Amino acid sequence: MSSSAPQATPSSQAPRVSGAGPQAFADRHIGPRGAEFDRLLNEVGVASLEELADRAIPAAIRQEGELDLPPALDEAEVLAELRRIAGRNDPGTPMIGQGFYGTVTPAAISRNLLESPAWYTAYTPYQPEISQGRLELLLTFQTMVQDLTGLPIANASLLDEASAVAEAALLMSRANRKAKNGVILVDQDLFPQSLAVLPGRARAVGMDLRILDLTGGLPEIQEPIAGVIVQQSGSSGRLHDWAPLVSEAHERNAMVTVVADLLALTLVAAPGDLGADIAVGTSQRFGVPLFAGGPHAAFIAVSEGLQRSMPGRLVGVSHDDAGRPAYRLALQTREQHIRREKATSNICTAQALLAEAAACYAAYHGPEGLTAIAERVHGYARALAEALSAGNVELVSEQIFDTVVARVPGRADEILAAAAERGIDLRRVDDDHVGISTDERTTAAEVAAVVESFGLEAHDIVPVAVRLPEPLRRASGFLTHENFHAYRSETRMMRWLRRLADRDLALDRTMIPLGSCTMKLNSAVEMAAITWPEFADVHPYSPLERMRGWQHLVTDLEDRLAEITGYAKVSVQPNAGSQGELAGLLAIRRWHISRGDDQRDMCLIPASAHGTNAASAVLAGLRVRVVKTAEDGTIDSEDLDRAIAENEGRVAAIMITYPSTHGVFEAEVRDVCETVHAAGGQVYVDGANLNAMVGLARPGRFGGDVSHLNLHKTFCIPHGGGGPGVGPVAVAEHLVPFLPGDPLEGDPGRPSASTGDGGGAVLSDAAAAGQGLPVSSTRWGSAGVLPISWAYLALMGGEGLTAASSVALLNANYLAKRLGEHFPVLYSGENGLVAHECILDLRKLTARSGITVTDVSKRLIDYGFHAPTESFPVSGTLMVEPTESEDLDELDRFVHAMISIRAEIEDVAAGRVEAERSVLRRAPHTAAVLAADTWDRPYTRELAAFPLPSLRVDKYFPPVGRIDGAHGDRNFVCSCPPPEAFAEAGGDAEATTATTEEDPTR
Amino acid sequence: MSSSAPQATPSSQAPRVSGAGPQAFADRHIGPRGAEFDRLLNEVGVASLEELADRAIPAAIRQEGELDLPPALDEAEVLAELRRIAGRNDPGTPMIGQGFYGTVTPAAISRNLLESPAWYTAYTPYQPEISQGRLELLLTFQTMVQDLTGLPIANASLLDEASAVAEAALLMSRANRKAKNGVILVDQDLFPQSLAVLPGRARAVGMDLRILDLTGGLPEIQEPIAGVIVQQSGSSGRLHDWAPLVSEAHERNAMVTVVADLLALTLVAAPGDLGADIAVGTSQRFGVPLFAGGPHAAFIAVSEGLQRSMPGRLVGVSHDDAGRPAYRLALQTREQHIRREKATSNICTAQALLAEAAACYAAYHGPEGLTAIAERVHGYARALAEALSAGNVELVSEQIFDTVVARVPGRADEILAAAAERGIDLRRVDDDHVGISTDERTTAAEVAAVVESFGLEAHDIVPVAVRLPEPLRRASGFLTHENFHAYRSETRMMRWLRRLADRDLALDRTMIPLGSCTMKLNSAVEMAAITWPEFADVHPYSPLERMRGWQHLVTDLEDRLAEITGYAKVSVQPNAGSQGELAGLLAIRRWHISRGDDQRDMCLIPASAHGTNAASAVLAGLRVRVVKTAEDGTIDSEDLDRAIAENEGRVAAIMITYPSTHGVFEAEVRDVCETVHAAGGQVYVDGANLNAMVGLARPGRFGGDVSHLNLHKTFCIPHGGGGPGVGPVAVAEHLVPFLPGDPLEGDPGRPSASTGDGGGAVLSDAAAAGQGLPVSSTRWGSAGVLPISWAYLALMGGEGLTAASSVALLNANYLAKRLGEHFPVLYSGENGLVAHECILDLRKLTARSGITVTDVSKRLIDYGFHAPTESFPVSGTLMVEPTESEDLDELDRFVHAMISIRAEIEDVAAGRVEAERSVLRRAPHTAAVLAADTWDRPYTRELAAFPLPSLRVDKYFPPVGRIDGAHGDRNFVCSCPPPEAFAEAGGDAEATTATTEEDPTR
Repeated sequence: MSSSAPQATPSSQAPRVSGAGPQAFADRHIGPRGAEFDRLLNEVGVASLEELADRAIPAAIRQEGELDLPPALDEAEVLAELRRIAGRNDPGTPMIGQGFYGTVTPAAISRNLLESPAWYTAYTPYQPEISQGRLELLLTFQTMVQDLTGLPIANASLLDEASAVAEAALLMSRANRKAKNGVILVDQDLFPQSLAVLPGRARAVGMDLRILDLTGGLPEIQEPIAGVIVQQSGSSGRLHDWAPLVSEAHERNAMVTVVADLLALTLVAAPGDLGADIAVGTSQRFGVPLFAGGPHAAFIAVSEGLQRSMPGRLVGVSHDDAGRPAYRLALQTREQHIRREKATSNICTAQALLAEAAACYAAYHGPEGLTAIAERVHGYARALAEALSAGNVELVSEQIFDTVVARVPGRADEILAAAAERGIDLRRVDDDHVGISTDERTTAAEVAAVVESFGLEAHDIVPVAVRLPEPLRRASGFLTHENFHAYRSETRMMRWLRRLADRDLALDRTMIPLGSCTMKLNSAVEMAAITWPEFADVHPYSPLERMRGWQHLVTDLEDRLAEITGYAKVSVQPNAGSQGELAGLLAIRRWHISRGDDQRDMCLIPASAHGTNAASAVLAGLRVRVVKTAEDGTIDSEDLDRAIAENEGRVAAIMITYPSTHGVFEAEVRDVCETVHAAGGQVYVDGANLNAMVGLARPGRFGGDVSHLNLHKTFCIPHGGGGPGVGPVAVAEHLVPFLPGDPLEGDPGRPSASTGDGGGAVLSDAAAAGQGLPVSSTRWGSAGVLPISWAYLALMGGEGLTAASSVALLNANYLAKRLGEHFPVLYSGENGLVAHECILDLRKLTARSGITVTDVSKRLIDYGFHAPTESFPVSGTLMVEPTESEDLDELDRFVHAMISIRAEIEDVAAGRVEAERSVLRRAPHTAAVLAADTWDRPYTRELAAFPLPSLRVDKYFPPVGRIDGAHGDRNFVCSCPPPEAFAEAGGDAEATTATTEEDPTR
Repeated sequence: MSSSAPQATPSSQAPRVSGAGPQAFADRHIGPRGAEFDRLLNEVGVASLEELADRAIPAAIRQEGELDLPPALDEAEVLAELRRIAGRNDPGTPMIGQGFYGTVTPAAISRNLLESPAWYTAYTPYQPEISQGRLELLLTFQTMVQDLTGLPIANASLLDEASAVAEAALLMSRANRKAKNGVILVDQDLFPQSLAVLPGRARAVGMDLRILDLTGGLPEIQEPIAGVIVQQSGSSGRLHDWAPLVSEAHERNAMVTVVADLLALTLVAAPGDLGADIAVGTSQRFGVPLFAGGPHAAFIAVSEGLQRSMPGRLVGVSHDDAGRPAYRLALQTREQHIRREKATSNICTAQALLAEAAACYAAYHGPEGLTAIAERVHGYARALAEALSAGNVELVSEQIFDTVVARVPGRADEILAAAAERGIDLRRVDDDHVGISTDERTTAAEVAAVVESFGLEAHDIVPVAVRLPEPLRRASGFLTHENFHAYRSETRMMRWLRRLADRDLALDRTMIPLGSCTMKLNSAVEMAAITWPEFADVHPYSPLERMRGWQHLVTDLEDRLAEITGYAKVSVQPNAGSQGELAGLLAIRRWHISRGDDQRDMCLIPASAHGTNAASAVLAGLRVRVVKTAEDGTIDSEDLDRAIAENEGRVAAIMITYPSTHGVFEAEVRDVCETVHAAGGQVYVDGANLNAMVGLARPGRFGGDVSHLNLHKTFCIPHGGGGPGVGPVAVAEHLVPFLPGDPLEGDPGRPSASTGDGGGAVLSDAAAAGQGLPVSSTRWGSAGVLPISWAYLALMGGEGLTAASSVALLNANYLAKRLGEHFPVLYSGENGLVAHECILDLRKLTARSGITVTDVSKRLIDYGFHAPTESFPVSGTLMVEPTESEDLDELDRFVHAMISIRAEIEDVAAGRVEAERSVLRRAPHTAAVLAADTWDRPYTRELAAFPLPSLRVDKYFPPVGRIDGAHGDRNFVCSCPPPEAFAEAGGDAEATTATTEEDPTR
């Protein structure tokens, strides 16, 4: 096709993408275009993207040939293909329950939260001054969980119910001082997936775990009991009064975890009221779609005293420099990124966006609305129970919330088939038992259809009133905070979400140049499919016939990721990077054991590694030996040799990150891999920095045996303010048998949950999915967001992905060159190039001026930017990663801001301004301060507010000033403060914060 | 079902809605709840909503019985029902063309504009200081149209292409001073819908319109020719060189309008370059879905000197009080709300949101991207033409852009059927001709399938290069402004749209208490379905078999609206309130004529009426007699009697608004109707204020013969910053034959556009749709947004709708009581109650203080509010309409703001502050002013910025200060200013604006 049209700013240097044109998505995803490439390449000093890649990446590891992926589709094509795939799913009406329930996501929440870039493109709230909106919602989630569970402290959040149960077991094991590392007893009525995930997690750390019937009380055993885990409305649907067991356990110095259902807790006695120490569960049914298994926010709530041992992120209340209440992440010193192998758990990215959705759902319905929903759910379950009883069907449990289990000797398959004919899927407990769970969507007609599936006639199905006996019945109130009462109309909910979003800075307003976190574009077309009912409404335990589309998409995505990484096989099951690490390390450990190498329990980890690496190693039962960093930032090869020599025959693995966390392609990576392999160890390549390599180098080919990927970094799943994350694990051929297995593999419900004819196929599918230990509640983990990454790969194609990696390198090297004049770039590779990020070293400046990296971060807020990563991997530095999605204008805007800040620092260093009183230390500046009648600072208002002219029109004002983090930890508060707290805010306090931070997005 | 759950704030006074509970939508739509009702009712002094309605509404007109509508559905049910309805549509692959083309809406634009409440809930930018974002996009639209058409002035926007052609005819007729009211000649190759709409519009105003073949030049006629209309790529697909005709026309003192296709204009000579005076067309194919006919933004561009005669809204550039460039609606004195019957047209609400989408599409693709799309579209059309020619199929036109018309004697139906078998719909021009249009979505496979439908073999379909001969070929450049180059990556587009949205205040942040404009909640669930492909991708001229879902939805909506209004039948065709008025008045006029009453051409209009009423009357060929207002705000019955006496036998109609534009239920309305009926006139009840009456009173039952409704007021279609609007017309039985007809009725394409077997049904359907004059391009007008109103009605049910009306009355009366102490409420009904809005009279205060309603409006921005309606219907007053969607908190926030402002005025009135220097006159205050180093105003910064404490955290700062409107009209600029203009902004000018404004949302 000829083109004599006006050509805008062509450049021979733009990346080569076949079929590029108005519809080529790669051109939309990649920020720079046309003549901008010339300027970028020129500044970096290379002639082309190819030359840049050749020079930045060691030849020894450079990928040969192009990625073998299907040709790129355009937006319309990818939507059409996703519709075809979606069309192969048939959600039906799942009444399977087992921790996953139909729910109605209010459209006001879908549109204004889940589908709003302001919410989903936000980063984890490590810069709390620009995160007050999402912190308020997360605090609302915590308050909701605290109220409903009756326990004083809840986190926000965990990954899924099964892993939350495992976290509770680990917490009791380490926190019970009277029976440290004692036995953990688990009631057998927990959901099967919890019982499937728990043993692997327990075995890895040497925990003595026993699963048995605890309804009659604790067994007579000699060993100390660290903890007991029971479920309120478990596999049998039974509601049991666990109060006597709790008393008995406490008498025997055991702690008690109650697995609870948040909706049931509006009617049923709260775990805290029973005396339990811990409650865990999922908030899925609070308005979050089934998503074929996830993402959903799980929760953990604990009694006073356990907060410093609890896993996950915890939002707390502190105050800002004007004394106004302000939110922040609390007690971070517990977390993996600070404590490393001594951390309480390896959880970092959790399910923030989903926790926010659940909190909104609770706010939208309020206590009486939730209670009414619970009453209807319960009422239909009771109606079903009565109808079945009237038909002489024997029921397993008398007291239930939402689940009826019928004893139907030999008839389970027949009844399931009859229900399936009516479009309804029931739970096949085993040959002789059928389970039916009601939910928010259940109708009288559906209950009647179930009754008929039992061969009975259904008459007048209406919800039956609640008649729970006293000990089971909830007495305490809940959700009394204003947030659960003020946003009931859609108008109010819409405006609340807008107001909160406006308090925050997310990717929809600014570059978020976070080293190691890869905050790239989350495009609208990638996000489009996830809420389609054909994807979103599928129950994870539905028969495979119902989810052929999901099966196709997951398999195809795993195959594409295997091609990109150069590994034999990928599993998407891990629903966070941390879980991917754990799954990968478990695979390595089990491989060693399968070869008789039980003694290989030492994991070598470079000093610069993500703290999560060490924490995950411990959870996989490995000991950690830190390997030093050499002068030039590479792994100290002598110390590596020493470490191997010290641990001869015991090295299980080395965990390296590539390109390194120093933002450099280390030339010696092949040597390191060979050295460790020679010592009998495996090589774990952390995929955190894969965005620098796609199409250019493959960890599975240059020495890695295992990697985990972060789909929320390299593959465009939005960070969502701290989740969802997805952390697929990729392994070489010999480790394939140890990939995570289906948590329901072998469960009697699995083979014939199908409608009869497909049973064999389902079983073999499940078997083919892996033999390894499951790490998540469901086989595909956070399936619900996988269409995002699938769409990204389909839209980009191999050339587009390679171009994206190359431009990520280009943009980072551009910043390194432009900023290097003003802030030394700490490390670079052999040719003086960095990889996809660079470390700006402020230590000398700090020594001269007293101005810290935190001061720079806070001052960047005044310029409208989210800060780079602070003090990771090197304290006193900022790590900057622009990604390929930013264009020259935005890069330059950042450069100008940093240069301007550099001059502000110089003023302090030169003694012209006192650090304490400088515009840097007093940053960020709120509108309330800037437009106050009094101004007593030694710099001008305009300098504070509008250091660059463009800010005069479009200016972000943080809602609070600098937050005092230490105050919040000393005066720990983790629920929503009363409205009066804001009215009382004075202006008395001065803030100091200096938390070490690093990439926790995995 | 029992409920012993904690009950929050119950109230026996809350509206009664069956099945109310957590899922009842009416509870979400209606703002107040629980105990708030007690406070509201108490303040108003009534015991219940029923009592309020009984007292506010005259017994004589009060509706008896409840609305007979289906029971309310909840959100999940309504989505399920809409999916069922959508499933009955089958868009297929339309290659019908004729002004409607497949296009790809970039997901970045769908999500960040069309699906963003910040954009779609915005009001018309009459308060420009809080509308700079949408004004920038509308200005970008104008610049785009100007560039592509080669004409210096374009508006934003018109309603559809057919009515735009009619507007051009009217414009030429009135603006051609050398041949005023001369003949209008129209080339016969215009699209059939334009040729169908034009004669009715011409006949109504007595225009001499002649349709003929103009390719050979102008005919030899004696009468002066006012204007000529030709189309560039018309019905035959032919590209004709019209330059000679333009010269000839100008020699004969005729003006020339060229109907043009914006995409074609990237390749084809621009109308302006041809010398044309006017260009019109639609921007649909710039990324706006087919929507089964609309809404789409049409455009009109004119040569210098015509701007004061052109219809519609025009964005212009002026400056603010700091001398910074600022946008505003320009030359409003032309418009209907000021000029009334002397206005240039009756257009007010147009298609702002769709114009914004088209502008974004142009910005996203830029000139070379649009050209590439055009080249591919053209290339496929050429490829098709060549393949058909090679198969000896005769083609009608040699030079084409995108449309091939084949001469196939007697074979049209056979070929259409063959194409339909391949899923493709072609255009049946007549028995012997088939038309095929390519578009942005066309693929080689589809072209091949078309070739095969002709019984030919298709080989190697690839786009053919552009080879247009010189005179047809475009030479001039276009889209050179930065806005068409700066937002090409999705990241940039996303942030641009966020930045612009943040400059504006819309319903997602604040109540917009605009009297007469009914800015109520546009709920997310109502909006959900409109972008589903099954609705959005249907071509309006597809066979009816393809749109059974649309047919069902439209019919059902019309039936429900008929039930609500008490009329016999409704037509949704008018795509704005103004078009509804015109259609209604045309029905009245034609009914009179059908009875031989040709002389009835007088329309009585109360002085307080919307200006549009008068403008529409003129366009319907009626003369206007204004009827005075009595002391108490009612219609002056003596003057009415006089008017009738003066015009005995000539009264065609009275146009009244009910409740009146004074916000009162006038007790005498039945008398007025009877008086006019007795005089032989018809009663037109303007439905602008229907939100006060749904379920409580029916205009079709208390005397109305016709009403138009505003779906974007009462029925929740969002205002979209100035459109889309939908203005259905409702009529009594005797007027049913005069409802708007299908514009393609009788077109040879219509009967057998179906695949052969359904032809008869289609024909009779079309006939049943009405015998009247079409007013829009398509039979269902802006079908695409009708699912919004349908969903609202389905979600609310009769009880919910009645409750909504009652609460609208309650909220308005609450404000009247609370504010009445501080600002006199001008009018009220017999019981001292207002209807759904109230007029605050500031005239005495203004006299005492010099502070105007405009000052109050601008000061409200500092409080975070959008102003009420200014100076309509009474100059010097503010009209406040809260709607039922606002709750007590928001009402009180407004009350506090107004009371605080009242005190600020008192300071001026008491002489403590000079008006010129007061915080009111200097409002609104930008951040740049508030945080400036110097402050020389006689009030404090904090008073200016934070007059209420809640503003300290969540504060909206306008991007510009008070805008100088007069300056903009004196120095008229209507395209995007160069970026340097902003850099040069000084601080020299002081602003004064005092435009009369009124409800233009129809």
